[in-house]
Amino acid sequence: MATLIEIARKANVSVGTVDRVLHNRGRVSKDTRQKVLKIVNEIGYRPNILARSLSLKKTFMFGVLIPVPDQDGQYWELPMSGIRKALDELKLYNVAVSLFTYDKYSAFSFHEACQNIESSLEDLDGLVIAPVLSKASELFVSRLPESIPYVFIDSYIPDSRCLSYIGQDSFQSGVLAAKLMQMKLQEGKVIIMRILPIDYHIDDRVRGFQFCIQQNNHFTVSMVDVDREISPEIFNEVSEKILQENTDLLGIFVPSACTHQVAETLVQNDRSGSVVLIGYDLVEENRKYLKTGTIDFLISQRPALQGYQSIYSLYRHVILNESVDQKVVVPMDILTQDNVDYYQG
Amino acid sequence: MATLIEIARKANVSVGTVDRVLHNRGRVSKDTRQKVLKIVNEIGYRPNILARSLSLKKTFMFGVLIPVPDQDGQYWELPMSGIRKALDELKLYNVAVSLFTYDKYSAFSFHEACQNIESSLEDLDGLVIAPVLSKASELFVSRLPESIPYVFIDSYIPDSRCLSYIGQDSFQSGVLAAKLMQMKLQEGKVIIMRILPIDYHIDDRVRGFQFCIQQNNHFTVSMVDVDREISPEIFNEVSEKILQENTDLLGIFVPSACTHQVAETLVQNDRSGSVVLIGYDLVEENRKYLKTGTIDFLISQRPALQGYQSIYSLYRHVILNESVDQKVVVPMDILTQDNVDYYQG
Repeated sequence: MATLIEIARKANVSVGTVDRVLHNRGRVSKDTRQKVLKIVNEIGYRPNILARSLSLKKTFMFGVLIPVPDQDGQYWELPMSGIRKALDELKLYNVAVSLFTYDKYSAFSFHEACQNIESSLEDLDGLVIAPVLSKASELFVSRLPESIPYVFIDSYIPDSRCLSYIGQDSFQSGVLAAKLMQMKLQEGKVIIMRILPIDYHIDDRVRGFQFCIQQNNHFTVSMVDVDREISPEIFNEVSEKILQENTDLLGIFVPSACTHQVAETLVQNDRSGSVVLIGYDLVEENRKYLKTGTIDFLISQRPALQGYQSIYSLYRHVILNESVDQKVVVPMDILTQDNVDYYQG
Repeated sequence: MATLIEIARKANVSVGTVDRVLHNRGRVSKDTRQKVLKIVNEIGYRPNILARSLSLKKTFMFGVLIPVPDQDGQYWELPMSGIRKALDELKLYNVAVSLFTYDKYSAFSFHEACQNIESSLEDLDGLVIAPVLSKASELFVSRLPESIPYVFIDSYIPDSRCLSYIGQDSFQSGVLAAKLMQMKLQEGKVIIMRILPIDYHIDDRVRGFQFCIQQNNHFTVSMVDVDREISPEIFNEVSEKILQENTDLLGIFVPSACTHQVAETLVQNDRSGSVVLIGYDLVEENRKYLKTGTIDFLISQRPALQGYQSIYSLYRHVILNESVDQKVVVPMDILTQDNVDYYQG
């Protein structure tokens, strides 16, 4: 399939001539008309979407429902950077986004963001959603009209009619974390610090970790729930308590970006290096503790790529009317002190 | 800086009108002329490279000097896939490549490929070079006229006037390999199987590995040179001999894509799992042995990204006349049995 420009080049005529032939208007010599039509028959003609959207002067507006960028140690800035990159590339196609951010540790804030979307649905051609508040997100998408396509990034809601999910295989990344733990440790006591409120994505990581490490009876594994709604410093407080009560602790698995708060507490308690610490996401605070060796491994999930792909999925579906992969599984990068300098986050 | 189209949109006039104003020809009302010039003054005007190259009907031809794709377990197909992707994206700019492939285990073949390039220099606007035969490549680029910009991928030649190097920090990747070895092993005998003829890039990996592991006196490390020019099966033969002579061997480091041949020999000798094996590059045979666990770790260097970036570096320099990063260091991905399924190679 070729555009007007490509056909014009092959026929060695002007774009205007090809346009006149295809739309059967104006004067074109019989020879030229035949030459152009022959080429169109051979290679096909793809209407120029760019020209069409320019002439329509239509703006495609996608809503983005994600946590405020400065939450989770600036984590949410990373998918936003990918979204901005895609918008920049698609500038000429009049693609724009409308941001609906929420405090992920406030049900009220999420509810408000959803209401804002619902009252502007008329102006939206699609949605990018990070459904980290699983239960509330489930309810929200069930109420969306069928005319609004939506893409999930980061987390997943089963049995929804999402156009596409772009994220990690969370269960398998938990398995990977357990394997890495067993490379650093032969045996001993390990604690999983799970974050609340419930996020299916985080829960899958926990399940993968448990599934794998429980096959090895040299380990005793227990789980501590950390309710982030109580306070932003709760991870410091709970890990402080864990360290006091478990002087024989050898490993901690943090299935979220809050790993650096545990690292900070390890350093303060002079336990850095004697407790293996494995966590997620290359936010700046995590990078710092990975480089000093307090964090042994971070598993990263290409957040910028997720944001970038989410806009392209909507663009392909809404503007190009092309089919879109239902599931895009991003790589799970293993980051250590020794390779982290070559990753952007 | 905006294109003709963007200026036309902002001024709410036709592209033809903007063109007439900018080139001071044809009739345009005074008001319209002022409106257009005001916008041009505000945001600047970037001549449309696409239109220019189309009207010139000029093709930009880049030569690509790399090993034949089926060498090193199809490794060289991977950068080629990235090169093809870039060409596809730049199709309308008339960018094309001319392939000059060589057998990397034949000095004669390399010499012939270089001669072919030298006799077609007139038609080439730039070169992508994988200088894996370090000495011969050094000589070749020293003879290139200054008018030909060239980009290195994969390997590096110091003190050359290359436009850009796109590849891994080879020394640091060797350090990483040594760290991974020390996660799997506490102590013991380790052998490095270095491939010949000399490739600076491979030598840097070896140096990084030695530098790191020699700081740990629980290891005894020795190096065996494997001259690949002797036969394609030489890695099998030499590793067979190593296993026979070293019944106490605990680890092997292969700083090249030939890792799978060592894995095959480990399986045949029933030593898979009792010797830690760390190597490079996600070619299909390596993937197979990584998944079964005979290979413990592969370090990957984003070969498709290297190929892709090399074309864009030349495109930016030659066609857009923009500056180009002198060094693009790609991430060093750590691949294991548990995350390899999410990587393409």
